[in-house]
Amino acid sequence: MDRRKFILGSSAGLLATSSLMSLSAFGCSTKKTVKSGHLVLRFKPYELKLKHAFNLAKSSRTTTPDVQVELEYDGIVGYGEASMPPYLGESVESVTKFLSSLDLTQFTDPFRMEEILAYVDSVAPNNRAAKASIDIALHDLLGKIMGQPWYKIWGLSTEKIHPTSFTISNDTPEVVQQKIKESEQYKVLKVKMGVPGDKELVETIRKATDRPLCVDANQGWNSKEYALEMCHWLKEKGCIFVEQPLPKEMLDETAWLREQSPLPIIADEAFQRLPDVVRFKDVYDGINIKLMKSTGLHEAYKMAVLAKSLGMYVMLGCMTETSCGIAAAAQLSPMVDWTDLDGNVLIGNDRFEGLIFEDGKVIPADKPGLGVSIIKGLE
Amino acid sequence: MDRRKFILGSSAGLLATSSLMSLSAFGCSTKKTVKSGHLVLRFKPYELKLKHAFNLAKSSRTTTPDVQVELEYDGIVGYGEASMPPYLGESVESVTKFLSSLDLTQFTDPFRMEEILAYVDSVAPNNRAAKASIDIALHDLLGKIMGQPWYKIWGLSTEKIHPTSFTISNDTPEVVQQKIKESEQYKVLKVKMGVPGDKELVETIRKATDRPLCVDANQGWNSKEYALEMCHWLKEKGCIFVEQPLPKEMLDETAWLREQSPLPIIADEAFQRLPDVVRFKDVYDGINIKLMKSTGLHEAYKMAVLAKSLGMYVMLGCMTETSCGIAAAAQLSPMVDWTDLDGNVLIGNDRFEGLIFEDGKVIPADKPGLGVSIIKGLE
Repeated sequence: MDRRKFILGSSAGLLATSSLMSLSAFGCSTKKTVKSGHLVLRFKPYELKLKHAFNLAKSSRTTTPDVQVELEYDGIVGYGEASMPPYLGESVESVTKFLSSLDLTQFTDPFRMEEILAYVDSVAPNNRAAKASIDIALHDLLGKIMGQPWYKIWGLSTEKIHPTSFTISNDTPEVVQQKIKESEQYKVLKVKMGVPGDKELVETIRKATDRPLCVDANQGWNSKEYALEMCHWLKEKGCIFVEQPLPKEMLDETAWLREQSPLPIIADEAFQRLPDVVRFKDVYDGINIKLMKSTGLHEAYKMAVLAKSLGMYVMLGCMTETSCGIAAAAQLSPMVDWTDLDGNVLIGNDRFEGLIFEDGKVIPADKPGLGVSIIKGLE
Repeated sequence: MDRRKFILGSSAGLLATSSLMSLSAFGCSTKKTVKSGHLVLRFKPYELKLKHAFNLAKSSRTTTPDVQVELEYDGIVGYGEASMPPYLGESVESVTKFLSSLDLTQFTDPFRMEEILAYVDSVAPNNRAAKASIDIALHDLLGKIMGQPWYKIWGLSTEKIHPTSFTISNDTPEVVQQKIKESEQYKVLKVKMGVPGDKELVETIRKATDRPLCVDANQGWNSKEYALEMCHWLKEKGCIFVEQPLPKEMLDETAWLREQSPLPIIADEAFQRLPDVVRFKDVYDGINIKLMKSTGLHEAYKMAVLAKSLGMYVMLGCMTETSCGIAAAAQLSPMVDWTDLDGNVLIGNDRFEGLIFEDGKVIPADKPGLGVSIIKGLE
């Protein structure tokens, strides 16, 4: 088997050996295998190398598994990706298995997006990042066919984009101060709380800067009373909202907290698919949309429309991803209240270029599709 | 003044003399007045001639006032229209005044749809048909620039389109029988009720055909008990839903009726703009979206997304319109449960061609924008 080729989705079996996961094993796809007038799927694992180890409450990691996807139609290629932080339950193996099970060559018109995505969604439950990779590649492909970026197709303007937040992870006060200094281009800082030393981290940050803070508690506060106390304390510290303060199962407690809290309460781990928006309308003030949870842009756009119509806040988040996935999310960002799109700057081996960072904002390029292209040499 | 030219929106004053309203006064627009890289608006009154007089409870009419709109950008022209049945409060005068007050030349990028439509919406309250005419022309223009019809841009497929209903208006039993025979290509019939003789009309129809019926009561039933009695009777007669059974102000009574009724209760007169969807979620089973009420396609698409997400039925209706307005609505029709798009076949002087009627369904052409073009000689 020629490892320099992408895996052809409809014919290849499960394929995820470690040798395929190194950069040098990647190669160009061969166009001669493409049947004209049909959608052809290719994909390959691509391990994201984190610039700094990710220290969470119970674990630490230096890489994120990722699968890069190509969807080709009549010689035009759309790019997508699946990023699989381990706690979400997907892996290179599961994504490869899912993508291998798809037969997209049955579709002769890429514009039948609802039909194609309904098919993809029907093949197996969950597998949300795998599904997102197809949706993202399809959007890139269609945008390229139409000659426009998706923010324009949706009628949006990049002037409406808010600055992205940037996560300051915990460390010694000296290192935290250094991180704050090095992140001066970011106008909003994000802190992970619900772990030992979290209040001290906020104090350390406040000694160095008065930039607005947002907080992700990652379900880390176990009682509604403590969560409320923290919200009041954080309000005084210049925090603008709190993500997932309580475990996702604690709906009644979260609804109570939301009524009492001086800060908006945003659903992250609790929130996955479109029907969750209506379900959470009286529980949370807003939702954190991430493409790897929403199964991609098509459903994410509907989530944003729905949430805004219901008077909810919308936040746009991400996993560690290449600029491909971040550029996809950025298309939606003019619609949302808060963006948290720093996933591509956390990795040292981004595969795409073209996404713009300006005035603390992540701005999609005014180019067709997602507006990104593969960095030379990383094809 | 040269009557053969369209009225240039940003410079012309209020202009709606009766001589402008005859077909012979229409002429081509002159491209030399168009500033490159700017949106240029032109419009002219166009009186729709009804094939048969429209007999409503309290009035009868043989024409519908309409204003035809063109939006040009870099030599590409998008078409739109405003149709103004008198009971909705708009007129050639009000639409002309509204369109004349717009300065669209300030926009150098037609893709900034949300910004452009927000500006149009901000100029004056109400004026929904006038606003729709701009939205429809903008969609036609953008679809032409992208080279795709809007149903494709939204990812929809025409296979999902349901047959349109066709209105059988009341008359002598013999004439009604004749109308039913002549409308054999329509698979669903619609009856206006809430007027004297309405039950007899249903009986007459049922003697001739067992095609499904839908009913528009036009707020004509004044008590919830009578409305419920009618719903049970209509259920037995093969009716599939009832539009606006009670006056739009009777929200509590409608919510009660909805709980009791064996047929879905759909909001028509009560329903206008996007926020109404959420407001009516516990009052009606569904909504009737009409572009002349929704201010056009952009808001209508969001309405459909929202209503479907809330578990509501969506019906797509129209006014008497040319095939331009009907083709615009038809782009959305794969998303909805019921279509009622017979407005163009009710007029004798349609100005557009290209919309497809097949198997009782109104199907947009697979052509850029709205997929319609002006009939030769009617430019």
